[in-house]
Amino acid sequence: ARPVRAPRGTEITAKSWQTEAPMRMLMNNLDPEVAERPDELVVYGGTGRAARSWKAFDAIVETLKGMDDDETLLVQSGKPVGVFRTNVWAPRVLIANSNLVGDWATWPEFRRLEAEGLTMYGQMTAGSWIYIGTQGILQGTYETFAAVGRKLLAARQGTADHPAPPAQDAAEGPLAGTLTLTGGCGGMGGAQPLAVTLNDGACLIVDVDESRLRRRVGKRYLDEVETDLDAAIAKVCKAKEERRGWSVGYVGNAAEVFPEILRRHRAGELTVDVVTDQTSAHDPLSYLPTEYTVEQWKPEAEADPEGFTKKAENAMARHVQAMVEFQDEGAEVFDYGNSIRDEARKGGYGRAFAFPGFVPAYIRPLFCEGLGPFRWVALSGDPEDIKVTDQAIKELFPENKHLHTWLDAAEERVEFEGLPARICWLGYGERHQAGLLFNRLVAEGKVKAPIVIGRDHLDSGSVASPYRETEAMKDGSDAIADWPLLNALTAASSGATWVSIHHGGGVGIGRSIHAGQVSVADGTELAAAKLTALLTNDPGMGVIRHVDAGYERAAEVAAERGVKIPMTPAPGTAK
Amino acid sequence: ARPVRAPRGTEITAKSWQTEAPMRMLMNNLDPEVAERPDELVVYGGTGRAARSWKAFDAIVETLKGMDDDETLLVQSGKPVGVFRTNVWAPRVLIANSNLVGDWATWPEFRRLEAEGLTMYGQMTAGSWIYIGTQGILQGTYETFAAVGRKLLAARQGTADHPAPPAQDAAEGPLAGTLTLTGGCGGMGGAQPLAVTLNDGACLIVDVDESRLRRRVGKRYLDEVETDLDAAIAKVCKAKEERRGWSVGYVGNAAEVFPEILRRHRAGELTVDVVTDQTSAHDPLSYLPTEYTVEQWKPEAEADPEGFTKKAENAMARHVQAMVEFQDEGAEVFDYGNSIRDEARKGGYGRAFAFPGFVPAYIRPLFCEGLGPFRWVALSGDPEDIKVTDQAIKELFPENKHLHTWLDAAEERVEFEGLPARICWLGYGERHQAGLLFNRLVAEGKVKAPIVIGRDHLDSGSVASPYRETEAMKDGSDAIADWPLLNALTAASSGATWVSIHHGGGVGIGRSIHAGQVSVADGTELAAAKLTALLTNDPGMGVIRHVDAGYERAAEVAAERGVKIPMTPAPGTAK
Ligand SMILES: NC(=O)c1ccc[n+]([C@@H]2O[C@H](COP(=O)([O-])OP(=O)(O)OC[C@H]3O[C@@H](n4cnc5c(N)ncnc54)[C@H](O)[C@@H]3O)[C@@H](O)[C@H]2O)c1
Ligand SMILES: NC(=O)c1ccc[n+]([C@@H]2O[C@H](COP(=O)([O-])OP(=O)(O)OC[C@H]3O[C@@H](n4cnc5c(N)ncnc54)[C@H](O)[C@@H]3O)[C@@H](O)[C@H]2O)c1
Repeated sequence: ARPVRAPRGTEITAKSWQTEAPMRMLMNNLDPEVAERPDELVVYGGTGRAARSWKAFDAIVETLKGMDDDETLLVQSGKPVGVFRTNVWAPRVLIANSNLVGDWATWPEFRRLEAEGLTMYGQMTAGSWIYIGTQGILQGTYETFAAVGRKLLAARQGTADHPAPPAQDAAEGPLAGTLTLTGGCGGMGGAQPLAVTLNDGACLIVDVDESRLRRRVGKRYLDEVETDLDAAIAKVCKAKEERRGWSVGYVGNAAEVFPEILRRHRAGELTVDVVTDQTSAHDPLSYLPTEYTVEQWKPEAEADPEGFTKKAENAMARHVQAMVEFQDEGAEVFDYGNSIRDEARKGGYGRAFAFPGFVPAYIRPLFCEGLGPFRWVALSGDPEDIKVTDQAIKELFPENKHLHTWLDAAEERVEFEGLPARICWLGYGERHQAGLLFNRLVAEGKVKAPIVIGRDHLDSGSVASPYRETEAMKDGSDAIADWPLLNALTAASSGATWVSIHHGGGVGIGRSIHAGQVSVADGTELAAAKLTALLTNDPGMGVIRHVDAGYERAAEVAAERGVKIPMTPAPGTAK
Repeated sequence: ARPVRAPRGTEITAKSWQTEAPMRMLMNNLDPEVAERPDELVVYGGTGRAARSWKAFDAIVETLKGMDDDETLLVQSGKPVGVFRTNVWAPRVLIANSNLVGDWATWPEFRRLEAEGLTMYGQMTAGSWIYIGTQGILQGTYETFAAVGRKLLAARQGTADHPAPPAQDAAEGPLAGTLTLTGGCGGMGGAQPLAVTLNDGACLIVDVDESRLRRRVGKRYLDEVETDLDAAIAKVCKAKEERRGWSVGYVGNAAEVFPEILRRHRAGELTVDVVTDQTSAHDPLSYLPTEYTVEQWKPEAEADPEGFTKKAENAMARHVQAMVEFQDEGAEVFDYGNSIRDEARKGGYGRAFAFPGFVPAYIRPLFCEGLGPFRWVALSGDPEDIKVTDQAIKELFPENKHLHTWLDAAEERVEFEGLPARICWLGYGERHQAGLLFNRLVAEGKVKAPIVIGRDHLDSGSVASPYRETEAMKDGSDAIADWPLLNALTAASSGATWVSIHHGGGVGIGRSIHAGQVSVADGTELAAAKLTALLTNDPGMGVIRHVDAGYERAAEVAAERGVKIPMTPAPGTAK
């Protein structure tokens, strides 16, 4: 055990904030409040690591402390491999994690290389040092469940094709009077119950590992834990009836519990309205088959990874079959980005892809506007700084009621984990305004220290992932991976402080390529120039990616907001 | 037919040389003197294209002409997709070609997407606008065959483990008195006969397409063409006996001719000393099966790509079997980077990987020093400018006899194709000196216009390709693709004028990821600063990549020449 926590306050040990910031953010990713298994350097999402080893961690910290503001550190899958003299506009850190040549991009080959000490799994924001705890996903999950609720409402009102925009002044949230069933209460999945209850829905969440559920109760993300299924069901049904947000965690294996609840649903004992899942399905060794207990999990997975994988895939086939049959019964069912459909397919279930991924179902229209998970962190460590930024953002976008609702809920309900941070979705034309605003707050001393600004790799123009972010693209370009690579090169060319290219992320080896960028608002003129370029161009990639794929909304946004696109696509012409 | 040729001279139509240069180089790649099939925008290597379509070509040219020196154009698989405001240190063009997510990285999926107009094959320097005709590969091929010759000499002298360094003052080249058999006389492969004869060897090269062979005779790369096998063999045997460089092209299918020559070799009719191949094996549709004539090739491949692929793989199995059996007979046999071993394996031949790739066999020690294919182009179009640079390079490196030998041979034997260009291998610590030298020549008016400086994607730190550049790495890290991505990010951070990330290149879809960078010595102070950073850091990646993999020579080079590496590897410790 070696607890790491980012330094707070205004005194720095690196030569400038441009190198202090990545150092603190790396440390913050491993803060026991933030990381799932800090001793093993695992931050979230199965085995997503912040550094390859403790030796590599120490070397990164040491190197960052000694670097000048025109030097650049290279990190190869969590290991620092070189320092080059570049220039002040260049990133201070360049990161590439978990990338493999296509024909070798398989879990067995990846694990072999990982065991040899040659690579690590970077997930999305673990190896790129901008994970901010469960809050990071909470806002996206909140947006998704709000969109689900709006779709259910619209369906009831017979306007399914045109779900109403967020009803800001509605007395109750869009999930009031509904029950959501889901699985997996880990680093990401733990955001689901609160996201549902913030939308006034009832939520039953299934996890095999009681400690995962208990932990979320402590953090106010989950209302209570039940080990008796009848009691758990009674509680959520009561909440649903009373149109009250309430969440219950049930300890069990989803591959058994989902079919059992389906049976009761069919028998008329309860009605489930929404079904999804966020177990760590993307990595079969992180999904517990029904044959084993939690205690047997690790030793069995290590002793026989291939046998374990087969069992896990079989369990997922049953798990997904229940989900598909819930859809047959009329429930709203979606894949929540963990690749469970493909694992179930491998487990022999033929209808695994009968329900859609959440991106085409709810998120793509937002991506067309360059909307995505904008997040920031107060390097001072002072929660007061986030309050100041929350207030300033509300004043910057006074008309955006949806944003105000979220920020108010977040201030009230979200507990900080690690350095105080905030997330909200902003689009093209908005993000750079927010960046410049934060830079001014720093320059004017309205916050105590510089602000780090980043985002998830799950963003509008930053990822190729045919089972998630780029599932069912209009032009069929799901698997084209040029976009995230251009995105990373653009970030490196636009003043980002660190830039990353990862493989695998939330959907697993072989299934995605994605890029990230982080910048530091340190109050200087140079930072202002960088933030303007970076936070314009980065969401701009989302707009051009969707224009190129033929989405009309994206073409409108590009035209209205002045995104330069050399070949404006004319319908019916060769691209 | 739409002939394109780069403008010559000092008048520019773009706003500066930083955008004029990529425009001229794109056009130069399509110059009928340079490109294999310019009408289809195919530059070399099967279907390696410079732009996705003529529309895309026009839009790229138009966009480059209008761009400021703080704007950046994004090119996605040959199509211009956006322009962003960045900064003067940022590249003017960012390129990503042919990249696919791992599980979709297959030829059928790639071809489907290509047919939909969503991607194109970029090869290495086709889609990255720094192909300079056959000369580009000639020097690398010359170096390789020289190394082969030295190895044969050392073996004869019983010092196989330590081949002598290039014997500069030897009266004859290292291949004198040997016969080399090879296949494929296309864009790359056409360099083989001259590379052999420059080393005083005899060479028999087999190609199905007579026009490909004739073309090389016109260009002085091949001495003569024969359609009669007995006559062809007699001629090369005579040259071998007389220890004289001489090359003969024979029209035939390698899958038939190689086994036939093996039969005669076994019968004692001739002795083949070296065997290799550069048919377009990486793309089975570009390899002619024995069932078809050259005329049937295109229609048959289009009518039934899968059936054609099977036939091609079967033919390659017989082709490679002959190569392996030549090795059994004592010949020096190597794969020359076209992935033919893996295709033969798919064609059902079990010993396909019995002979090594050329990189582990001859090139890796050079990579450890950051040595690789440094190339430059005179934008003036004036051959005199290259003469001036040749002379200046000789004066800059007066001790490097090996380099002088090559430059003298190149000046005498190499005909320019398209814009005058030169290539030579330089290492870490040398390349930036050459770049600064060229920048001074431009500033002082010793050459008439700026000089473009680039390299192949086949370089010491720019590629992950387990069947070629990273085959049999010491630590087993062959398939780790973080390195080329870090390389591209480093180039974008170090002042390159254009940067590219490609997938597939010479070995085909699913088998490699690689990066390129090009810069422009325009005589300014800014260019000098950029060239210093870029041409230090880019070969620096080669050094650190090989240090990390455990090569001692690379560690020595890093220590001697001051490459900063945070974790100097101690033997036996976890990496
Ligand atoms: N939708 C998104 O935006 C998004 C973003 C990131 C990650 N993800 C994916 O979501 C998944 C969850 O991520 P995480 O960070 O929460 O992972 P995690 O490893 O922290 O948590 C997974 C949880 O699933 C539980 N679990 C495993 N097998 C189970 C079974 N058979 N039945 C019930 N519970 C089981 C585990 O006990 C654990 O609590 C991953 O696949 C991740 O890649 C999705
Ligand atoms: N070693 C390296 O450094 C390197 C670099 C780049 C490319 N390559 C690879 O080398 C190969 C050749 O490249 P290229 O640009 O010359 O390709 P190309 O398409 O221009 O030429 C290939 C030649 O092979 C001939 N050919 C095809 N099938 C044949 C057969 N059955 N028998 C005899 N001849 C046959 C064709 O007629 C053609 O002339 C490619 O696979 C390329 O990817 C190697």
